[in-house]
Parts: sequence; C-alpha cells; structure tokens
Amino acid sequence: MAAYPSQLLEKAVDELSRLPGIGKKTALRFCLYLLRQPEAEAEALGDAIKKMRQGIAYCPDCHNMSDGGLCQVCSDHTRDKSTLCIVESIRDVMAIENTTQYRGIYHVLGGVISPMEGISPSDLNIMTLLERVQTNAIKEFIMALPATLEGDTTSYYLYKKLGETPASFTTIARGIAIGDELEYTDEITLGRSILNRVPYQTVKGK
Amino acid sequence: MAAYPSQLLEKAVDELSRLPGIGKKTALRFCLYLLRQPEAEAEALGDAIKKMRQGIAYCPDCHNMSDGGLCQVCSDHTRDKSTLCIVESIRDVMAIENTTQYRGIYHVLGGVISPMEGISPSDLNIMTLLERVQTNAIKEFIMALPATLEGDTTSYYLYKKLGETPASFTTIARGIAIGDELEYTDEITLGRSILNRVPYQTVKGK
Repeated sequence: MAAYPSQLLEKAVDELSRLPGIGKKTALRFCLYLLRQPEAEAEALGDAIKKMRQGIAYCPDCHNMSDGGLCQVCSDHTRDKSTLCIVESIRDVMAIENTTQYRGIYHVLGGVISPMEGISPSDLNIMTLLERVQTNAIKEFIMALPATLEGDTTSYYLYKKLGETPASFTTIARGIAIGDELEYTDEITLGRSILNRVPYQTVKGK
Repeated sequence: MAAYPSQLLEKAVDELSRLPGIGKKTALRFCLYLLRQPEAEAEALGDAIKKMRQGIAYCPDCHNMSDGGLCQVCSDHTRDKSTLCIVESIRDVMAIENTTQYRGIYHVLGGVISPMEGISPSDLNIMTLLERVQTNAIKEFIMALPATLEGDTTSYYLYKKLGETPASFTTIARGIAIGDELEYTDEITLGRSILNRVPYQTVKGK
C-alpha cells in the first residue's frame, strides 16, 4: 500500500502495524472499522492504551502486574503466604490464577536462564526472591517453570541458591494432559508420567 | 481469560478485542508487547487512533477520505476532471491509485445496491453524483464496481440514471489476471475473456 488518502489515516496505520503479527493491510482494516464506529469507541481505545502504559505498575514483592503498590495476590490477606510459586512471566500467573486451584503467592522471574539468548541469573528477579526468603517464612517453593532445558536449568539454579532454607521444594506435575491420547504423546512425557505415577484416585468434583 | 492482574490492562484488552478478528488472547499479546516498549510508543499509538477518528473528513465532491476539505485527488489540478471513475469504497480508490495508471477523478458510492442486505439507491452517494454531473463536463464514466450481481445491478442503475448525459460509459476490463493459468480460471471469466478479446500487443514497459 503506497498512497493513503489522509495523513491521519497513514499515521494510524503505521502505528497499528507495529503491533506483533499486524501488517499494513490488517492495520488499514482496523482503521476503516474504527471510522465506521461512533467516535467514542476510537476515543476509548486510544485512551485505554495510553492509560494502561502510563498507569500499570509492578508489585514490589512478586513483580506481578498491579495498578500501583502491591498486586492483587500479595495484598489479599486470605492467601497462604508460606507457599511461593516461582513462575517465568505474568502470563503464567494469569494462567494459574484462572485455574482457581492455587491459594499461595507468586514470584515472577521475568524470564529463564538462557546462555543462548544471553539471559543470565542477574537479568532475572532473583535478588528480590532471595531477599523475600530472608524476611518471610516460606514453607514450600513450587517450581512452575517451563518444561524446557532453560526452565530446568533455572529450577536447578534456584534450588541450589535457596537450598539452605528449611522449606520443601516441589515442581508442578508433568504428564499426559487431560483429554490427550497416549499414542500421540511424545516418549519423554509418557516415560516420565510412568516413572512419576501416583496412587489411583476416583475423580472428585470438576 | 478471567482474572487480569490490573484493571487498566483489562480495559485495554477489552477495547482492543473489539477490533475485527482480534480476540482476548491476541489483545492481551498486544498489551504485553506495548508494556515492553518505551512509553512513547503506546502514547503515539493511542494518539494516532484518536486523532484519526476525530480528524478525518470526507471530500464533499467525491466522498473519498481527506484531512479536511477536498481530497488529494479532487484538489490536484493536474488530474483530468472530465474522466470520472465510479467505485464502491475508499479502499478501491486506494487500490486504483496504487496502480498509478489512472489520472482522472473518482466518485465513491459507499456501497452497491443490494436488496438482500437492504441497501437501496437512496443509501448510496448517488444524489451527489447526479449533482456533480450537472455542474461538471464529464466525458467518460468508468464503472469500476465489483464483478458481482450487486455490482452489475448498480452499474446498470447508474447507466440508466446518467444515460441522458452525452458522456461515454466504460467498464474496467475483466479477464484472466496476470500470472494466472487458464486451466484454473472459472468458466464465466474465461468465456468473457474470449468474447471480449482485444488486438494483440507486444508488452511495453512493465
């Protein structure tokens, strides 16, 4: 697309096409859609984007997203502060929160150790994790990092760093996903799920 | 996705997910991307969207988009004002302009007649077209409407309405697209392209 009939349109297309996975054609489609909607809708979208970027803060304790100060999880007095789940990203916190199965707190590392991508322990929120451990009585650390070489390396690094605390260390269960067929599962997952088999339980609830 | 760690994030995701083809997950991806960028980028995006919606005007002559007043085409004195190309939408103007093969002016109908969708001639920019014809000496009307039943109906309706003017009527050529194989072309297009064959020319330039 070369010629735009309006500079305002061209500017909006340019800005929208910076979003991941959005090209000039899709950006133009967005603009033509917005031009057909009431002015208030484009206004609300523009404001929401600006306010989000300006206003979002990060929890000083766990590095989760917040609207300023402590995050929803850390400021919730009903949460179990002695169980700490270590995750890679804010997305992982959202995913675990959506299960409604976890009542402890989190620590967001902001990545995993990856020599290939030049991410070393000092690039991650590990210093603040070690400080938290000093001042809080954590009984259990749950390693909820990705099931990759980098995730495993990071778990091992943290285990060594935190090893002197009297807390227990667990890791989220890996195995066959609910609804999956055994024959289509990769060998490593299937092998691990046999080795780490658990006592048979009848399904309760959900 | 149920729980967002921030209300500002939730609002931005909500607004972005109104865009056509964008769901909550993609909207969240956009937001997390914007949060990783400098604040100025989110600011520029938000402003560009708002300014576009507030500032864009439509050409009083041809209904093309403009930044206020006449559009780029109508205000260009080098354009041939006696050749008028009738198109369905602003997107079609952009597509024809991008070919750089056309030096006349346009008239944007804003749709085509479609009894199925309840679009009648009075819903389109036809009154202003008839007024333009009164005050301008148009020598040729080019019908560049979609090659559909609705497009053909609209062309015929306009031909009847404009038939009393001494201008000539043409329609854009339909046939095999450049690079297309004959064997994969539908019968109607192929049949028409044989009926409407043109004298053989050696390719000049592009």
